[in-house]
Amino acid sequence: MGRANGGKDQTFWSVIPAGGAGTRLWPLSRADRPKFLLPLLGDRSLLQQTYDRIVPYSTPQRTMIVAGARHASEIARQLPDLPAENIIIEPYSNGTGPAIGLAALLIRRSKPNAIMGSFAADHVITDEAAFGSALQTAQKAARIGWLTTIGLTPTRPETGYGYIERTDEKVIDDATGAAYRAAGFSEKPSLECASQFLATGNYLWNASMFIWNVDRLAEELATHQPELFEALDRIVCAWPEVDRQDVLTREWVALKSVTIDQGIMEQCDRFAVVPAEMGWSDVGDWHGLGELLEQDANQNSVPRQLLQHDASGCMVWSTSNRLVALVGVENLAIVDTPDALLILNRDRAQDVRRIVDQLKDGLEDFA
Amino acid sequence: MGRANGGKDQTFWSVIPAGGAGTRLWPLSRADRPKFLLPLLGDRSLLQQTYDRIVPYSTPQRTMIVAGARHASEIARQLPDLPAENIIIEPYSNGTGPAIGLAALLIRRSKPNAIMGSFAADHVITDEAAFGSALQTAQKAARIGWLTTIGLTPTRPETGYGYIERTDEKVIDDATGAAYRAAGFSEKPSLECASQFLATGNYLWNASMFIWNVDRLAEELATHQPELFEALDRIVCAWPEVDRQDVLTREWVALKSVTIDQGIMEQCDRFAVVPAEMGWSDVGDWHGLGELLEQDANQNSVPRQLLQHDASGCMVWSTSNRLVALVGVENLAIVDTPDALLILNRDRAQDVRRIVDQLKDGLEDFA
Repeated sequence: MGRANGGKDQTFWSVIPAGGAGTRLWPLSRADRPKFLLPLLGDRSLLQQTYDRIVPYSTPQRTMIVAGARHASEIARQLPDLPAENIIIEPYSNGTGPAIGLAALLIRRSKPNAIMGSFAADHVITDEAAFGSALQTAQKAARIGWLTTIGLTPTRPETGYGYIERTDEKVIDDATGAAYRAAGFSEKPSLECASQFLATGNYLWNASMFIWNVDRLAEELATHQPELFEALDRIVCAWPEVDRQDVLTREWVALKSVTIDQGIMEQCDRFAVVPAEMGWSDVGDWHGLGELLEQDANQNSVPRQLLQHDASGCMVWSTSNRLVALVGVENLAIVDTPDALLILNRDRAQDVRRIVDQLKDGLEDFA
Repeated sequence: MGRANGGKDQTFWSVIPAGGAGTRLWPLSRADRPKFLLPLLGDRSLLQQTYDRIVPYSTPQRTMIVAGARHASEIARQLPDLPAENIIIEPYSNGTGPAIGLAALLIRRSKPNAIMGSFAADHVITDEAAFGSALQTAQKAARIGWLTTIGLTPTRPETGYGYIERTDEKVIDDATGAAYRAAGFSEKPSLECASQFLATGNYLWNASMFIWNVDRLAEELATHQPELFEALDRIVCAWPEVDRQDVLTREWVALKSVTIDQGIMEQCDRFAVVPAEMGWSDVGDWHGLGELLEQDANQNSVPRQLLQHDASGCMVWSTSNRLVALVGVENLAIVDTPDALLILNRDRAQDVRRIVDQLKDGLEDFA
């Protein structure tokens, strides 16, 4: 270890952990059709849009996806130019630490000096140039040994996101932007805390964009999560063998769930954040998706024909051919799929997961 | 004329004008499936329930239905013991005056002294004994020459109904109840007027229940609507002939639309009303239907399985097998049919007809 900042071939690799189910977008998202596989905005799925955005930096050969077995085939079909061996099958979802850590150590096996970026599979970014600039700045910080994250300038006191606190110490400061030493992560805050975060100007939304030198990550893993590091190392050693998936499964079962941000990055001395604005959204719930859709004069988001009489602030998502009519209602999300219908107060968009919880008691077909 | 109160065979006949489309129950009710043909509450349609209620008084042979051509076959199927010739086909809906007047004059042709009651096809009455008592009282008033209506004691300042004002003069007063001389009709009042009506205690809801001696009605028709009387008389004369429907159609086209209540009854000197309470509802809109359905602890009316999280006061009517989920919403009516979906604020239940109006501009298939 310790080769970062000195070695050659600091080529850039991308990793897309394609895990979350996106339960808050039920009934459109289901266990078998998670959010990242859905074409929510435009013709291409969120995963395809993510791939399109990062592949110019990493090439298909240097792009990896870590996903669950039930989604692997659909991922392979959606991304036909991605080499099949670059789709890593997790035995089951076990937190971001094992998934991203495995990808990092697999890259490190052949390219110990590579710079790796990890990007969520199901976020939207409308300003690709701003993304590119932030990525360049983050790569510069990664090349000098910083475990780096890109943080989004918050626009509202959102209580559903995690935050990253930055210090005033710049570790990179040039034409593409600045990277600051980070102070730590804060998980979903209260509204009062979130408002204070906004007021200080030092807190950024955590969008799970991580950029580092893979050998530096291995070093920090070995220091702060030695059990995880050793398990991942055994998997990487077995990777060329025929029993690869057996080893992976056995190790996975024994691993504890560790997050990459609080479990690893926050423990490190050289932890940096690049503040950025790039038209980002996690498309996390129906309210958020409604804001991304085109709206009519009554602030209704209506992707198809609809009849309305005194309706405002409503979004209608219909995958059926049925006529939808709204009378005297406001601030609703209406999601009409062939086998399930959701009527949601947009202020309560986070609570859709409560319905999915209920489905697990005997209505699994709808989950 | 003038045989009422003196002649024999004052048998009771029932007439059910089955006209209105029930546009406020869209998308369940459609032009081809009007409200009265739908089994909204229980297994039998509102028409069947109406028939079941009145046939013990009039027998099937003395029960007539006046309906549009597009509904005649379904009516015949729903009421198999009703003689086919007792279904009178209107060329088109032309107000209650021509429809009910024609039925009255057809009955009068064979039974000039008959007592006839006219009852809406699509109302609900839960207290059948109270209905029977009111009907007996109304028949007594009719036998002594009064054109009589049964009026419902109002329970709220409803602005969607018409009202009947009564005087304090009792024309019948015995064990089954009282009939009062009526002062007139008031069409749908403002909320202020409706509240005043309630406060006086002299106003009753007009539920279109009319009871009279058919010869007395003919007399009043001839006096107050001579053109209508003469046209109906020509139709009745042609009734036994092969060209019956031709004559009917030609006369219908020339007739002006006249209502039975304000166009005829209100003009009469002997116009009475029997106040009654009988668990009546016109099932006029989704809000009203929701109140008649069983409700759960959150005041949600849910005829089938539904998942909810913080939902209250909602009614769900689903004819699909889809799962319906509500999150954080209140006071909605949700009507889910195979080809149309309605989301309605229950306070705006009257406005569903605005949607049906819009459908007539190019989406007739859904109307």
